[in-house]
Amino acid sequence: MKNDVEQKYERLKKYLTREAYLKQAIRIVEFDRATVCPPEGRNGSGETMVVLESEAFGIKKEADYIQLAQELYADRENLTEARRCLIERLYRDYRRNSGITQEKKYEFEKAKSEAFVNWSKAREQGKFEVFLPSLEKVVAAERERVSLWKTDERDQNRSIYERLLDEYETGMTVEVLDALFSEGVKRITTLLKKINASPKQIRTDFLYRTVTDEQQEKCARYLLELLQFDFKQGVFSVSEHPFTEMMGKGDTRVTSHFYPNLFLSNVYSVIHECGHALFEQLQPDEDHAEFLTDGKTMGMHESVSRFYENILGRSRGFIHLIYPKMCEIFPQVFRDVSEEELYEAVNYVEPSLIRTEADELTYTLHIIIRYELEKDMIGGKLTGKAITEAWNEKYKEYLGVMPENDREGVLQDIHWTDSFGYFPAYALGNFYNAMYYEKMKEELDVEKLLMQGEFAPINQWMKEHVFQKADRQNPSEWIEEITGKKLAADAFLTYLEQKYTKIYGI
Amino acid sequence: MKNDVEQKYERLKKYLTREAYLKQAIRIVEFDRATVCPPEGRNGSGETMVVLESEAFGIKKEADYIQLAQELYADRENLTEARRCLIERLYRDYRRNSGITQEKKYEFEKAKSEAFVNWSKAREQGKFEVFLPSLEKVVAAERERVSLWKTDERDQNRSIYERLLDEYETGMTVEVLDALFSEGVKRITTLLKKINASPKQIRTDFLYRTVTDEQQEKCARYLLELLQFDFKQGVFSVSEHPFTEMMGKGDTRVTSHFYPNLFLSNVYSVIHECGHALFEQLQPDEDHAEFLTDGKTMGMHESVSRFYENILGRSRGFIHLIYPKMCEIFPQVFRDVSEEELYEAVNYVEPSLIRTEADELTYTLHIIIRYELEKDMIGGKLTGKAITEAWNEKYKEYLGVMPENDREGVLQDIHWTDSFGYFPAYALGNFYNAMYYEKMKEELDVEKLLMQGEFAPINQWMKEHVFQKADRQNPSEWIEEITGKKLAADAFLTYLEQKYTKIYGI
Repeated sequence: MKNDVEQKYERLKKYLTREAYLKQAIRIVEFDRATVCPPEGRNGSGETMVVLESEAFGIKKEADYIQLAQELYADRENLTEARRCLIERLYRDYRRNSGITQEKKYEFEKAKSEAFVNWSKAREQGKFEVFLPSLEKVVAAERERVSLWKTDERDQNRSIYERLLDEYETGMTVEVLDALFSEGVKRITTLLKKINASPKQIRTDFLYRTVTDEQQEKCARYLLELLQFDFKQGVFSVSEHPFTEMMGKGDTRVTSHFYPNLFLSNVYSVIHECGHALFEQLQPDEDHAEFLTDGKTMGMHESVSRFYENILGRSRGFIHLIYPKMCEIFPQVFRDVSEEELYEAVNYVEPSLIRTEADELTYTLHIIIRYELEKDMIGGKLTGKAITEAWNEKYKEYLGVMPENDREGVLQDIHWTDSFGYFPAYALGNFYNAMYYEKMKEELDVEKLLMQGEFAPINQWMKEHVFQKADRQNPSEWIEEITGKKLAADAFLTYLEQKYTKIYGI
Repeated sequence: MKNDVEQKYERLKKYLTREAYLKQAIRIVEFDRATVCPPEGRNGSGETMVVLESEAFGIKKEADYIQLAQELYADRENLTEARRCLIERLYRDYRRNSGITQEKKYEFEKAKSEAFVNWSKAREQGKFEVFLPSLEKVVAAERERVSLWKTDERDQNRSIYERLLDEYETGMTVEVLDALFSEGVKRITTLLKKINASPKQIRTDFLYRTVTDEQQEKCARYLLELLQFDFKQGVFSVSEHPFTEMMGKGDTRVTSHFYPNLFLSNVYSVIHECGHALFEQLQPDEDHAEFLTDGKTMGMHESVSRFYENILGRSRGFIHLIYPKMCEIFPQVFRDVSEEELYEAVNYVEPSLIRTEADELTYTLHIIIRYELEKDMIGGKLTGKAITEAWNEKYKEYLGVMPENDREGVLQDIHWTDSFGYFPAYALGNFYNAMYYEKMKEELDVEKLLMQGEFAPINQWMKEHVFQKADRQNPSEWIEEITGKKLAADAFLTYLEQKYTKIYGI
């Protein structure tokens, strides 16, 4: 019996290997497209990605593959833990995809790629109505797609929006999110009011001083080395939007962008992306061998990137550490700036319209707004022009600001051209990482390690506690195993309250 | 009838599209591997390429594809010229591959990838015997592979070596090569003796002066722009060995390398690779639409790259053109060097051991040596240790130099780890381009255009005469259509004799 299972697993592995390398090729083409590919080659490389996606999708439609997945699922108790975990995931995906033909799949992808084109046009013209028909098509396509799932027990009780949520954040529910976010809105807006009323003056003029690309490149490489990004198994490049991508074992890539009058954007992009990269570089070898590497949820990933970016990167200890080097790299910026002034500037709070430029405190509010809107859009309660109105009203309510046009409002993010249920991950990341930061502080003197630039023990702690099982657990199991506690909003909100009370003297 | 053919062609096109984009992905992964990929990611990306190759090979083994190729071949008179040309090629390849199973294919590829590993080891240790067993396996694999061809009329009368030759240089025969090369050896060695006996002193000391990477990058971009490389549909990067690769329509990439004490290596690598790139960038759109872009032979390609590198790039007019810019970019090199001294230095003749560093005159002798050896190896007349001995003897005979070890002898080139029949293309390139250069000079004042830096008319002439039909004709048809003459050695040898007689005053 055991032997039979082994043989089946080996046969299955051939399909998974083919798929894995096709996906690796897609990621390389994607990276190339964002960093190297000349303008007139981008159509062709976009088409290359579509064709490879379809070939990869086709592999899991082969009858022999499906039979193996079914049989191994039935026999999963005879597999190792890693393989059982894999088979359960494959079986789930097979069932979800089994109602979707290659033609349907193509139709869905087509709606998304058209939506991207029209979203770009709409942004250029600043007109939501140019994007609206495509947006409605994508909403309809996403609704249809998850309606076609052959549901299992878990799926049966889920709403359409929860099914989408489950794709990015396994097991997450609207009930849990509603609870976290309503407490979040309450305590963050309360804190924000106090900050707005505070007389504290924070200097930010020097953040806009002009720097060169060479200085920014030097700074990026300094930060990556400091945080122990491994250049033997990684690469740093420049692209329009910063991102991180693991191509495959031994190859994780980080990009950033260089704005000549906003050097801090590069600094925190690099630290953020480096967090994503460490998560991949410090992954157990077995996860690669057993095809488990995409098990981490988006929320887990954002928790790590935002842990490095905010909890570490915007801490007093970290600023003490990097201040001398910043003075050395950017002498023209820091000629009259103290260490304390830098610390305050990186933590300056100002409610604003653009999510990606938001400070650590208000960022979560931007996400909650998107969550509330997309839930209603997928639920069919919010359609047409009412979307813009709802967007603007919520910005006024939560942040006290009002977009002057759709470009700085509802058109700002690319996400709704192809994904719903993704946004909550950004906010969840903050709730998760504040919880494991509490745990880490029980075991390590984090502030002291930061002051001394000792990242090895911090990364090691992350590897053992946070990274180790991330590919195999759903987020609720994972956060409970790390911290011994159930997911709750308090750790994050307390962290914010303590930090900003001190900075603003409120 | 016509309609039926159209429908079949449309069905066939779907297979070709899938294959074309898989191949585009392979090229992007390959480029990425040579320019960006971190050391520990190279195994994975190598494996990605192998898997994609196998997927692409599999497409043309699908029964429906084979049936379409056969039926369309039978109906080829009802197709447009471009499509007939394509179908003939597809049918030929189908017949050649039909005896080769996917397992056999894998076995052949395996022999080659092992040969690469052992060749690298052998080079490190400087020992041919470390490479020899792998070399013999590759020779056996290549012999077996072409023996398995289902031969057509053309193939039936070909020897094993000629079949290999045909893969790189369609229609080329041993008889033609023997005639060209024996005349080549005779006239080049005669010229070489005169040069060796000449009292002419050529200054080369400044070629070894130290330059920075920034200067070399600037120089590379200057040359590419000068020759009208199109950066909207192309990219310049740095890699260990210079190469050019067309990813797909609108995306042709050129690389070079920067040696700090040999700036000329970068200069002529860039010009050479730019020649390859112009050939691709100025290709007719229809060749892309009809999947004909790989119709150019290696000899045609080398003729163009070596035309730009040598005939244009080492001409008196070109040196006059670039000399001021070279002084500006590399002031420390040119502080005491005249234009005439630069011209002489780029044409300095010295028999040497390493092909890739050889001067324009002796380069062809390096190729002829390899041709004579590989023909005998594939013919079974040259095996074992005798290969090294034969190599060394021929170097002594043709060039008057003797390798001190296998690294600077028989182990210097990577080619025999995976291909036989490829080398002649390098020499053929010289014979071809000297012939069309004669024709070009009848229509354009090339020297004057070079002095004035006017590349548009030169590139336009190349586009109309040399590039236009290269994807559709075999080399003998092509050279005859361009020049009105049959392939012969005289144009190239006369060009060399006139050029060097003048430079060396002999």
